[in-house]
Amino acid sequence: MADLLNELLEANARYRADFDAADLQLRPRRQIAILTCMDSRYTAQGVLGLLLGDAHVIRNAGGRVTEDAIRSLTLSAALLGTRTCIVIHHSDCGLLGRTDEELRQRVANVSGTRATFGFLPFTDLDQSVRDDVAALRASPYFPPEYEVLGLTYDVRTGEIAVVAE
Amino acid sequence: MADLLNELLEANARYRADFDAADLQLRPRRQIAILTCMDSRYTAQGVLGLLLGDAHVIRNAGGRVTEDAIRSLTLSAALLGTRTCIVIHHSDCGLLGRTDEELRQRVANVSGTRATFGFLPFTDLDQSVRDDVAALRASPYFPPEYEVLGLTYDVRTGEIAVVAE
Repeated sequence: MADLLNELLEANARYRADFDAADLQLRPRRQIAILTCMDSRYTAQGVLGLLLGDAHVIRNAGGRVTEDAIRSLTLSAALLGTRTCIVIHHSDCGLLGRTDEELRQRVANVSGTRATFGFLPFTDLDQSVRDDVAALRASPYFPPEYEVLGLTYDVRTGEIAVVAE
Repeated sequence: MADLLNELLEANARYRADFDAADLQLRPRRQIAILTCMDSRYTAQGVLGLLLGDAHVIRNAGGRVTEDAIRSLTLSAALLGTRTCIVIHHSDCGLLGRTDEELRQRVANVSGTRATFGFLPFTDLDQSVRDDVAALRASPYFPPEYEVLGLTYDVRTGEIAVVAE
């Protein structure tokens, strides 16, 4: 743990040497919020060509619309001015084709405790995007002009495809 | 919306031109999961010198420990092998020094609907990290060897500081 921490702090010192906060503001300049998966193989900014300061990025397992995602997106819109949400789910996701029963068993095997909550697995990638886009469009907590886009990302090819616009 | 989408797809075409998935696997190679804020001004990978494929990244408003963050981190550990969680909250956060009453009013002003949920504001940056690290350490859903680190990030200077190790 001490080794990891030292490595991260040394990397941060290198980051600071080139860092310039001058163009960065609390309110995202492109008025975009992205909801996507925690997957390690991409960043939403990278695959869409967005810069630091452009967009909020909410990430959870699957990029699913949860109460916590609504909490975050609501704050992003009402407090910090975002007006477009982009939902991105991806191929080869850990939740794709799983069941809650299987996932609860995996967690119990590792931790000794059976989860009381569900994991939001899904069986069809495009449909999970459409479902989550529909959930956001139906939410009463966004301004009338709020728009929601749905995309998929292919982790093998790097390609974005449009599912809901 | 069509203009934005076209711009993003053109940026993605440029991304794909240089993209190579060969070193990227579903399981994060550093066995790290990061929980941090949705803020647009930094990426966790950038400030810590991590590469694509190294770490899961969970982001929500504040980088708070919620049921959804636990869902994501639990899957990350049990299904995909992460064994260290790094919690990072940051200076100048939209949740810092706010109250739920004020935030509910802001959402109601913009959307016309009063939120029934809380927004998890906090008044002390270091303490919010310590609280969330303690919440993860107390969770029964992680393996016995699971470790949790707590950091803060200064959005003006780019500096990471250690709060809980």
